[in-house]
Amino acid sequence: MDYQTKNGHLLFGGCDTVELAREFGTPLYVLDEEMLVENCQSFLRSMEKYYNGRGMVAFAGKSLCCLEVFRIMKREGMALDVVSGGELYTAAKAGFPMEKVFFHGNNKTPQEIRMALEYGVGHIVADNPVELALLEDISAELGKTAKVLFRIKPGVEAHTHQYIQTGQIDSKFGFALENGEAIRAVEQAKTLSHVKLCGLHCHIGSQIFGTEPFREAARIMLRFMKEAGELLGAPLHILNLGGGFGIRYTDDDEPIPYIEYMADVSQTVRETCGALGLDMPEIVIEPGRSVCGPAGITLYTVGNVKTIENVRTYVSVDGGMTDNPRYALYQAPYTALVANQADRPADFTATIAGRCCESGDLIQEHTLIQRPAPGDILAVLCTGAYNYSMASHYNRVLNPAMVLVNGGSARLIVKRESYEDLLKNDL
Amino acid sequence: MDYQTKNGHLLFGGCDTVELAREFGTPLYVLDEEMLVENCQSFLRSMEKYYNGRGMVAFAGKSLCCLEVFRIMKREGMALDVVSGGELYTAAKAGFPMEKVFFHGNNKTPQEIRMALEYGVGHIVADNPVELALLEDISAELGKTAKVLFRIKPGVEAHTHQYIQTGQIDSKFGFALENGEAIRAVEQAKTLSHVKLCGLHCHIGSQIFGTEPFREAARIMLRFMKEAGELLGAPLHILNLGGGFGIRYTDDDEPIPYIEYMADVSQTVRETCGALGLDMPEIVIEPGRSVCGPAGITLYTVGNVKTIENVRTYVSVDGGMTDNPRYALYQAPYTALVANQADRPADFTATIAGRCCESGDLIQEHTLIQRPAPGDILAVLCTGAYNYSMASHYNRVLNPAMVLVNGGSARLIVKRESYEDLLKNDL
Repeated sequence: MDYQTKNGHLLFGGCDTVELAREFGTPLYVLDEEMLVENCQSFLRSMEKYYNGRGMVAFAGKSLCCLEVFRIMKREGMALDVVSGGELYTAAKAGFPMEKVFFHGNNKTPQEIRMALEYGVGHIVADNPVELALLEDISAELGKTAKVLFRIKPGVEAHTHQYIQTGQIDSKFGFALENGEAIRAVEQAKTLSHVKLCGLHCHIGSQIFGTEPFREAARIMLRFMKEAGELLGAPLHILNLGGGFGIRYTDDDEPIPYIEYMADVSQTVRETCGALGLDMPEIVIEPGRSVCGPAGITLYTVGNVKTIENVRTYVSVDGGMTDNPRYALYQAPYTALVANQADRPADFTATIAGRCCESGDLIQEHTLIQRPAPGDILAVLCTGAYNYSMASHYNRVLNPAMVLVNGGSARLIVKRESYEDLLKNDL
Repeated sequence: MDYQTKNGHLLFGGCDTVELAREFGTPLYVLDEEMLVENCQSFLRSMEKYYNGRGMVAFAGKSLCCLEVFRIMKREGMALDVVSGGELYTAAKAGFPMEKVFFHGNNKTPQEIRMALEYGVGHIVADNPVELALLEDISAELGKTAKVLFRIKPGVEAHTHQYIQTGQIDSKFGFALENGEAIRAVEQAKTLSHVKLCGLHCHIGSQIFGTEPFREAARIMLRFMKEAGELLGAPLHILNLGGGFGIRYTDDDEPIPYIEYMADVSQTVRETCGALGLDMPEIVIEPGRSVCGPAGITLYTVGNVKTIENVRTYVSVDGGMTDNPRYALYQAPYTALVANQADRPADFTATIAGRCCESGDLIQEHTLIQRPAPGDILAVLCTGAYNYSMASHYNRVLNPAMVLVNGGSARLIVKRESYEDLLKNDL
């Protein structure tokens, strides 16, 4: 993995990470605004180039949800994908334009559906018949019409970790095509007067490398789009192809450039529309990890370094599964380095352990870093996505602060949790 | 699994769980005070019976940490095991007597060590040489003496999930016996003037059925206790045997009665002390799961029920891995039932899915429950331990409330999180 150094220290967003750790304390999430913006703009440029701008790039808010990140997304012209009342509330507080929000979820509560309709969310991505009935009832009560996309299981399996395959029929998400669920849902929608079916959505998985699964999904979705439009008597005009674009966590990962994905898939969409005699729909994509993942790192202070002869060396840090549960959950790969020795060779095999009273609290096993000593600053790269957003209070460990860095300056965007915060709801 | 019903509804702590769900909302953690108290008292009685009361039963706070639970532990005469500044802070706010607190952890920060010494924590369970040096420095600075136990790896492997094996040499926790780490640490302690080594601690794993691993650990620990005492020139007088007592999550689990564990292990301790010519040490045990696990249940509202022919039925609830990540982390078994149909046969095979945008967000797969319908109340049993304490904000889902039930009455002990709470540290 490439990174910049100065005086032997890891630089990130132009800032000396060792200085950041000193100033803001550890564990610390650090987010590079320039990289975040460039990732947004690169998707937006591709949307312009390959779809003549007829579409939206919706940031998958679940990957990193906080006020300042949502404000940045708004400023950069992104749309937004949310999955709960909490994310919706955050979007509202960030002043996000609600017409550019897509509200997802396999089990939205009636309260959340009401909230979304009252907020005037652009599109609700409906998951199941029970939800459609709820949408009709609540919309009628509020005197509104819910604009809806259907979440479809296209049956495409992307080859990735089993937990993050979501396009196949055995999934809690959405309507299956092959058993008729999806077409029955279109029939149901036809009977509803407060629900307007505008388009379709699919999401075939996460951390996918290669464009063919996306192309295949697009073909399947367009064929169903035609069928659904004909049944409905009005063509569907939005095709939301979801996210899942892989990023580089370690040198073993070889992600494709996003522009290649956009080029390939847009060609498939155009060809398929041509063959089916469909007008080109508006395209929505929903990158999360690929926008914010590489733009974030986590800084820790090394505590004890425990070498067990003929076994391994545990390097304990002052965070762990509480701020990054992805190794415990998925054995997710990460690249780590000692930030204050960043120009020395990474020739020391370490298991990076968290501070929780749990053997599975590890960040990475048997990974090469510089030889660490207590007090060193350890950086874990590519932690911008699904770290802060998955953080827990296990062992009542405090959630870290987050700073936004840009061209050498840094400012706090999420305050470090306090002990008082932990007890805020205890009676 | 046995449970009580009334009018077809699941009773818990004498309360109708369907009424609880209506009154306090879902998801809801429900904790039965009587069962919690009885579990404490059963351990305490065993300590009285088998060790003549010369010891302590320390509740493993990490299993369920909130003010009211710590107050109950105090009232019942329990000691307490904490693993972070956050748990220590909670103990202090609950008015817990600090001399009965054991402070654990593989990577305590200097700030936490200072906090523990300032609070006057009874014993610090030291993990490694770096921590011993820190303890000496900070104790000297504060003009105090740190009373210390050593965390020892006895080399006993309890047969359980790999994530929760902690007694073996390949562990981030403690000093190994077989490579000389432990005896070197005793030598180090001998040179320290502000650290007093009082005893030893081990913890051989979690959810262990059977007494032999505990007996074997006790034998090994006592032999080392003798060796350490001789080297130190002063006998060690505390033997903390940790926790790990298995509980019944499903009918497949066959836990031994705690009293049998206490009877067997105390016999081993007495015999081994006799053989070694050691005085009987004070015994500490640290049950967490076995105190609070069965005393808690979680109530959810069923949203959609998605039957995929020839595949499976997903029953989506309004919580999931955010309030109970144990299936996602360990594929942990649980027993579930439909609380408002509790006297009907559990003959419907369901996969209970959470509401997060993540395929792995499941509570249980292919489990038998009553045939559920949207709006039903689903109860998951035996969630008192490592559910609330491991809860996350993934997808910005709000953490549930917790109510304490006792003889038919219920009161809130942890308030439900609010949307405002989510943004409390966002700038």
